[in-house]
Amino acid sequence: MRILIAGIDGYLGWPLAMSLANEHVLAGVDNLSRRRLVHEGGSQSAIPIADLPQRLQVLETITNRPIQLYQGDLTEHEFTKQVIGEFRPEVIVYLAEIPSAPFSMKNAKQAMFTQSNNVLGTLATLFAMNELCPDCHLLKLGTMGEYGTPKVDIPEGFFELSFRGKSDWMMFPRKAGSWYHQSKVHDTHNIEMACRIWGLKSTDIMQGVVYGTRIANQLSIDELNTRFDFDECFGTVINRFCAQAVIGMPLTPFGKGEQKRGFLPLKDSIRCLTLALENPPDRGEYRTFNQFDQVYSINEIAASVERVGNSLGLSVCIQPIDNPRIEEEVHEYRPDNTALRELGYCPSDNLEGEIKTIIEDLIPHAARIEEYRHNLMPKIRWQSID
Amino acid sequence: MRILIAGIDGYLGWPLAMSLANEHVLAGVDNLSRRRLVHEGGSQSAIPIADLPQRLQVLETITNRPIQLYQGDLTEHEFTKQVIGEFRPEVIVYLAEIPSAPFSMKNAKQAMFTQSNNVLGTLATLFAMNELCPDCHLLKLGTMGEYGTPKVDIPEGFFELSFRGKSDWMMFPRKAGSWYHQSKVHDTHNIEMACRIWGLKSTDIMQGVVYGTRIANQLSIDELNTRFDFDECFGTVINRFCAQAVIGMPLTPFGKGEQKRGFLPLKDSIRCLTLALENPPDRGEYRTFNQFDQVYSINEIAASVERVGNSLGLSVCIQPIDNPRIEEEVHEYRPDNTALRELGYCPSDNLEGEIKTIIEDLIPHAARIEEYRHNLMPKIRWQSID
Repeated sequence: MRILIAGIDGYLGWPLAMSLANEHVLAGVDNLSRRRLVHEGGSQSAIPIADLPQRLQVLETITNRPIQLYQGDLTEHEFTKQVIGEFRPEVIVYLAEIPSAPFSMKNAKQAMFTQSNNVLGTLATLFAMNELCPDCHLLKLGTMGEYGTPKVDIPEGFFELSFRGKSDWMMFPRKAGSWYHQSKVHDTHNIEMACRIWGLKSTDIMQGVVYGTRIANQLSIDELNTRFDFDECFGTVINRFCAQAVIGMPLTPFGKGEQKRGFLPLKDSIRCLTLALENPPDRGEYRTFNQFDQVYSINEIAASVERVGNSLGLSVCIQPIDNPRIEEEVHEYRPDNTALRELGYCPSDNLEGEIKTIIEDLIPHAARIEEYRHNLMPKIRWQSID
Repeated sequence: MRILIAGIDGYLGWPLAMSLANEHVLAGVDNLSRRRLVHEGGSQSAIPIADLPQRLQVLETITNRPIQLYQGDLTEHEFTKQVIGEFRPEVIVYLAEIPSAPFSMKNAKQAMFTQSNNVLGTLATLFAMNELCPDCHLLKLGTMGEYGTPKVDIPEGFFELSFRGKSDWMMFPRKAGSWYHQSKVHDTHNIEMACRIWGLKSTDIMQGVVYGTRIANQLSIDELNTRFDFDECFGTVINRFCAQAVIGMPLTPFGKGEQKRGFLPLKDSIRCLTLALENPPDRGEYRTFNQFDQVYSINEIAASVERVGNSLGLSVCIQPIDNPRIEEEVHEYRPDNTALRELGYCPSDNLEGEIKTIIEDLIPHAARIEEYRHNLMPKIRWQSID
């Protein structure tokens, strides 16, 4: 298939490219904003990564297949149209969004940038698809965070809504908790409409929190490593706990630590995205997959990182801190995740094995984490204190 | 009260200012985008309107109360902060959005402009409120179009969702039918979150389709007239039918004409907004009012305009045209609208009386409509024909 990876330079985009490069004709788009934002935030990837042209060159040499790179901004609709018109993708894997809740909560500028980058980039892509390749499958990354933490079960996107004796098949209500998560909610509404009105087709992935350093069959070539962020904005919780463990800093759950989320290893994410693109929806179909392996509480995660870290000879302890976010700390959480399993996804269900791999991969780079250790503690608060 | 009207130069903003000027301390913001967009679209207001400084001056002279004007763009968050910081409003009536579905469906540029103008302007306002006036009441204009046309009753924003034996009080799912309507859905999600996370307070108005030329107690001073658009993008259906009647053009329902919507006269809209601002929500409260007078089908509207027009000596007929939109043409429609009545709103329920006033107000300006009669026929289609 001809697959365009939007955000090919990112944490997920790059390993997806590695995973697909042998079998498919790839192109990538990126504006390198993730590198810039992490740098401007005063941090770096714990694992050193090659420049984008360099990692592409290494990958092309190994696979002997060229990957067309478009460097630019997908919110510029003429650029978006040019990319899609030239490459004519059969699938667009859309990973080109700012992925950080804290980044979006810092101030008006960053909130507005997050929403405009995410919503308008996707919207420009929908327009270009409608005009140039209406048969193309948009495989779009959303987040489980769109749903929030309701007191009812969470279906995969849609459900039979019953009200006053009548019923209709409707979108499950969203209740996001940051401007970033809201941007994904906005995307969801826009994409659903593009499928309904224009007959486009899309898989909208409500993804859990990703962790890990490697994919299945990861080649041991330094230039092919994917980034690993541990800073307040771009590091996800398991990755951050592992980084804390490696430099002897206590793990810092927020508040009560009973917040539950769906999690999945990086390799499972790549596997799921691959299953989704190999099994496309029909024209006019908008489908939602809840993409995660298992639900854990933050305290369960911390306990696992502590256990694994100590077994590897580190000295790990847990010190909860005040919650900088405004979120429910004790809540129900029963999201469905059967659609991907029906396509063949076998959750790896090996949290501590993955944590062991992460910690082992990070230990050689402990000094790079140490250098920016201040970024492991949150400074951005969901509400400034009056 | 200190009331900031965002979009004071618009179809609703201006009559709201007239209506409130005697009783309240007003300020207005506008970037004159409505005048610009109508002009760029090759049309004009059927009823001539004064320049903003001129109409403000006339109003100030009559009321002997100054109205502070801020000319600028609310998506520029430093400007937004300056306006709110200087004026310190107790209420912000947010009418500063691009209000056109067809405008937003024309192309990527206009869709993106609509969503960025609407969503980012509101978001910048939420940030400024949170920082500078967290007790301020945001009275925000949404649209009944956010809900679409589901097969179930439509509550006022929220409902008790029951699913697999559990239940939760949740937002009623939205299913909008244009990029413009989606921008209002995005606002709804953003504002609900600002109330939940930051403790702001807001009334989100899901407004029906407004029609009319005048408010209650309209002064007979030409410089105080509000605009009346009849072009494809900025004219609403009853207003457009009246404009067609006045120049002897057949009324043009789209498709089957059995589409039902909630409608309300301009004077009812101003009355409802006034009731909402006089009865503010509590801190942290996000409430939704469905704001309309009656539900009519497009065919009922056309029949009423035909009847009234002919009784006034015009020669009116009805010629349905292919529907340029993609929408259900025969559907259920049972939206609630009790919240505003509980605050004292008595729907005027006088469709044909209002139509009579509109037609009488338009007849002296028939030549201004005639000049742009080509704009009464839709050219923008929801889907370009392959």
